[in-house]
Amino acid sequence: MSSARKKISVIGSGFTGATTALMVAQKELGDVVLVDIPDMENPTKGKALDMAEAAPVQGFDAKVTGTSDYAETKDSDLVIITAGIARKPGMSRDDLVNTNAKIMNTITKEIVRYSADATIIVLTNPVDAMTYSVYKASGLPKERVIGQSGVLDTARFRAFVAEELNISVKDITGFVLGGHGDDMVPLIRYSYAGGIPLEKLISKERLQEIVQRTRTGGGEIVNLLGNGSAYYAPAASLTVMAEAILKDQRRILPSIAYLEGEYGYDGIYLGVPTVLGGKGIEEVIELDLTEEEKQQLDKSAKSVKKVIDILE
Amino acid sequence: MSSARKKISVIGSGFTGATTALMVAQKELGDVVLVDIPDMENPTKGKALDMAEAAPVQGFDAKVTGTSDYAETKDSDLVIITAGIARKPGMSRDDLVNTNAKIMNTITKEIVRYSADATIIVLTNPVDAMTYSVYKASGLPKERVIGQSGVLDTARFRAFVAEELNISVKDITGFVLGGHGDDMVPLIRYSYAGGIPLEKLISKERLQEIVQRTRTGGGEIVNLLGNGSAYYAPAASLTVMAEAILKDQRRILPSIAYLEGEYGYDGIYLGVPTVLGGKGIEEVIELDLTEEEKQQLDKSAKSVKKVIDILE
Amino acid sequence: MSSARKKISVIGSGFTGATTALMVAQKELGDVVLVDIPDMENPTKGKALDMAEAAPVQGFDAKVTGTSDYAETKDSDLVIITAGIARKPGMSRDDLVNTNAKIMNTITKEIVRYSADATIIVLTNPVDAMTYSVYKASGLPKERVIGQSGVLDTARFRAFVAEELNISVKDITGFVLGGHGDDMVPLIRYSYAGGIPLEKLISKERLQEIVQRTRTGGGEIVNLLGNGSAYYAPAASLTVMAEAILKDQRRILPSIAYLEGEYGYDGIYLGVPTVLGGKGIEEVIELDLTEEEKQQLDKSAKSVKKVIDILE
Amino acid sequence: MSSARKKISVIGSGFTGATTALMVAQKELGDVVLVDIPDMENPTKGKALDMAEAAPVQGFDAKVTGTSDYAETKDSDLVIITAGIARKPGMSRDDLVNTNAKIMNTITKEIVRYSADATIIVLTNPVDAMTYSVYKASGLPKERVIGQSGVLDTARFRAFVAEELNISVKDITGFVLGGHGDDMVPLIRYSYAGGIPLEKLISKERLQEIVQRTRTGGGEIVNLLGNGSAYYAPAASLTVMAEAILKDQRRILPSIAYLEGEYGYDGIYLGVPTVLGGKGIEEVIELDLTEEEKQQLDKSAKSVKKVIDILE
Repeated sequence: MSSARKKISVIGSGFTGATTALMVAQKELGDVVLVDIPDMENPTKGKALDMAEAAPVQGFDAKVTGTSDYAETKDSDLVIITAGIARKPGMSRDDLVNTNAKIMNTITKEIVRYSADATIIVLTNPVDAMTYSVYKASGLPKERVIGQSGVLDTARFRAFVAEELNISVKDITGFVLGGHGDDMVPLIRYSYAGGIPLEKLISKERLQEIVQRTRTGGGEIVNLLGNGSAYYAPAASLTVMAEAILKDQRRILPSIAYLEGEYGYDGIYLGVPTVLGGKGIEEVIELDLTEEEKQQLDKSAKSVKKVIDILE
Repeated sequence: MSSARKKISVIGSGFTGATTALMVAQKELGDVVLVDIPDMENPTKGKALDMAEAAPVQGFDAKVTGTSDYAETKDSDLVIITAGIARKPGMSRDDLVNTNAKIMNTITKEIVRYSADATIIVLTNPVDAMTYSVYKASGLPKERVIGQSGVLDTARFRAFVAEELNISVKDITGFVLGGHGDDMVPLIRYSYAGGIPLEKLISKERLQEIVQRTRTGGGEIVNLLGNGSAYYAPAASLTVMAEAILKDQRRILPSIAYLEGEYGYDGIYLGVPTVLGGKGIEEVIELDLTEEEKQQLDKSAKSVKKVIDILE
Repeated sequence: MSSARKKISVIGSGFTGATTALMVAQKELGDVVLVDIPDMENPTKGKALDMAEAAPVQGFDAKVTGTSDYAETKDSDLVIITAGIARKPGMSRDDLVNTNAKIMNTITKEIVRYSADATIIVLTNPVDAMTYSVYKASGLPKERVIGQSGVLDTARFRAFVAEELNISVKDITGFVLGGHGDDMVPLIRYSYAGGIPLEKLISKERLQEIVQRTRTGGGEIVNLLGNGSAYYAPAASLTVMAEAILKDQRRILPSIAYLEGEYGYDGIYLGVPTVLGGKGIEEVIELDLTEEEKQQLDKSAKSVKKVIDILE
Repeated sequence: MSSARKKISVIGSGFTGATTALMVAQKELGDVVLVDIPDMENPTKGKALDMAEAAPVQGFDAKVTGTSDYAETKDSDLVIITAGIARKPGMSRDDLVNTNAKIMNTITKEIVRYSADATIIVLTNPVDAMTYSVYKASGLPKERVIGQSGVLDTARFRAFVAEELNISVKDITGFVLGGHGDDMVPLIRYSYAGGIPLEKLISKERLQEIVQRTRTGGGEIVNLLGNGSAYYAPAASLTVMAEAILKDQRRILPSIAYLEGEYGYDGIYLGVPTVLGGKGIEEVIELDLTEEEKQQLDKSAKSVKKVIDILE
């Protein structure tokens, strides 16, 4: 019985994909294959080579390669999808959904062709619907197709709270349900500093401002950058989910999971608390919600449903 | 006696500067201020915010802020300069040198105005001359103005050798003197795999190919990317130098150091083996060179001298 | 301005002291001086040397030295006291208190003689009273003399809960007030798995069993070992407090703090939630308690007071 | 395909075994089972529990359990043997060898009964002969039964050199062949500081003193401790070998390997440079030796042979 390294493929070599590849490699979670379309093959190879050249300085042993050939992803344990287009001026939401859904289809077919047993994490927006697309196209069991949004949303929330209280980020936690942005359902009562409910430390008004800032956290970065969107925190979020799965840590992290009855929804992907471990989503944790929270979650679920309907 | 965090300012918020800021923060070396020109203030703030939002997920405590106001760099322990323009088509080498030298002057004046006791590491190209410019403009003692090139060159060399031998990057070392690129003087006889001289493990011809690939390692990435240059390995290299200084590790690392007699040169900055510790360059290590090595180093020194002459 | 390493002295070279010294060195928090009485000088030097020999393999740069001469602790930033005797059969509680109080006196005089500005963390039992002794003997401001018990108590609680739920230890938190053991006041309502209150995940009865096991957690190890007491988790607890202070992290951690009115107590050391940062205890966090919690805390405070009375 | 955690069993719960278990767990290399004889079952459980309670504070996810029942080691990926008796006053060398060989036999039978595919690392002294015993008793292929001595010997050497030169341990390397102690064959010419041969930095006489101190490094600690022997550096050495194998790093590390013709020896275990990776010893690296080195290695081989002859 030999100990072979695990293999992680990251689809999409843009800033988020590339940064994710680097972070996964730095943690020595396994060898990394960064994949993009043939037109981007050289830049993809260039980024991978640059990372490989960082390895001796940072002391991590992980092969990082760039390619446009899915054959090189063969036998991946985990695949992270960051590819897709961003919404352009004049583009309708439906166009965005359909374009990215087509991209998800193409990518997923290639992935499962070479790695029939992989787990897949999806970041591409609109992420609930795109995770659904990947799930459908993959034929994989639901626990193996997972979307990312809550880890990033809570990361932003935690950063804002840590700054507000001038307390270590290590001791701030947050909790969200539902979708990104306007559809995010924050559970302030489950958010703490050193275990102390934030409601006891920060005024209600200020907390609402922080929640609102979190909701628009992606847009805040887009506006500042002027050209492009966030990638450091998204990549860190994908990496912590990857680590939980590859190292079978059974962490409680928010994931976009396929629901079959949980929280009263069926047949949609939605952000819920989950246990992430070696088998993917090992559990969906169901919580009692207040009426207000349930209403917000319903709204979130409807938004997701509407996008999924575009797909079908 | 309270334990205040250290402070590191990174000048230039391009890919290398931003990646350096992230890596420095991830290692909790101190709080990080990312600085760029007023026109870039928003993107700089955006990148810093994105990093701050990655902190809760990765668990590092380091404030990261973006600014165009040098007042925010006040009392920095370490400043890393990555700013400057890249050579554009049609631009003469002299124009590049003079433009970047002016930038170095402006930046350095601002740095020392707010942090008279900082140590400065320079990455901007042509790096030997730019380090010289910063040294002259700063009025700092020579051991506190340091250029980076050798850590990156050996990183590339080590990555290529690790791949060639299929051996852990942790066990491959390399050794260079002199300048970047064509001026790099590789000391193959001081380069090892697990302590075994590479000459015993790789044929002379293959080693020469690897050396040649290292010399043109920056260009290889530029060609692949098509638009831009390497930043992961350069940022990792700057970070390991920063760590050696801020944690007073007394590491033996190649630095671009101001020479006053060492290796027979006087009044120039040149890549040599140094001891990096809490005081900056604590020692320049002088080695006996073969005649061939000495000739190559002379050539390298002459190149540097020629560029410095442009400056004056 | 040069970056000198910090210096940490660990008093007492028994298993806990030695393990703490190693963990502090592994994290490169600074150079470590391990101190014991003259009779133990050689074993102390032996342990320190063994750690120094582990450094190249684990890659940490920290000098570790063993001594019985307090002069070598000169200019320590932080001192951790683990020395003292354990209660022996036939020894009264008062005898234990008085013997260890004398030891604290002697040690503290030596510490402040050489490091007038240090912060001190105390582990020696009975820890509330011993922290008080050190405070009185040191003449240091209250925020610089800190006792450890809550980090360890919550660590045990977290370990038991993680096992119970089969969930990553990273996602389990606990919260205690008051003293060790029978005097521990658990705040179950502030204890979570992935942010979800434990009361929603574990039955009341089972939680009580876990609390009870935590209360007797030190004794459980003593009984198993047969000869000696726990040292891995205590050392890890001391190290995380040391890190919070030396790296100015402003973490929310339970500490034994000198109270002047907080929670209605005055002039005693008691376990409370605190903010640990570069200045030591930067804040005592006051929480609203239920009547039951307040009663338990009163009982805890009375126990501490009784022991302090023995001292005076 | 699910990502199960790896499993590591450590046989012998003395200081070295316990410290190894902790270090392996801290690195999240897998779950750890600490095993000792039935008489030691409770202390073994106590140490394991203490480590498990350190996990939440240090943030590592690895189950650590203590037992005297080999059934719990079932399906281990790696087994580390630290058990065995130390030589007692009046005990002949042959008695030591035969007693420990019997222990190795018993242990090995149990190991392979439950983990037929494990890799085994042996630390028990006299280590070359004990590794041989385990090899013979196990029926495993030679690349899967490995002895530790050179990583520890070079660690000591590196620590002494780092102190001598006041240079980071990260930049000092050493190289040894042959057995422990008097039989150690140091290859000074393959030992460096920052890649610079030590012979250029330290006088021949001083280097000989350092070599001599390394040879007697184990005894130096024994003499200082008065009661017991080194465990921190031995545990760190075992852990780095375990990591190289479990993470398939293909590191060049000195191992005690079974030789079939290499270096001119056949049918013995001897310390040689090896490539450690997922398959165990993936390669024995053969070096040209000077006549003096070859003579020393012959002497070392003869010592090993003599001990093996006692066994048979």
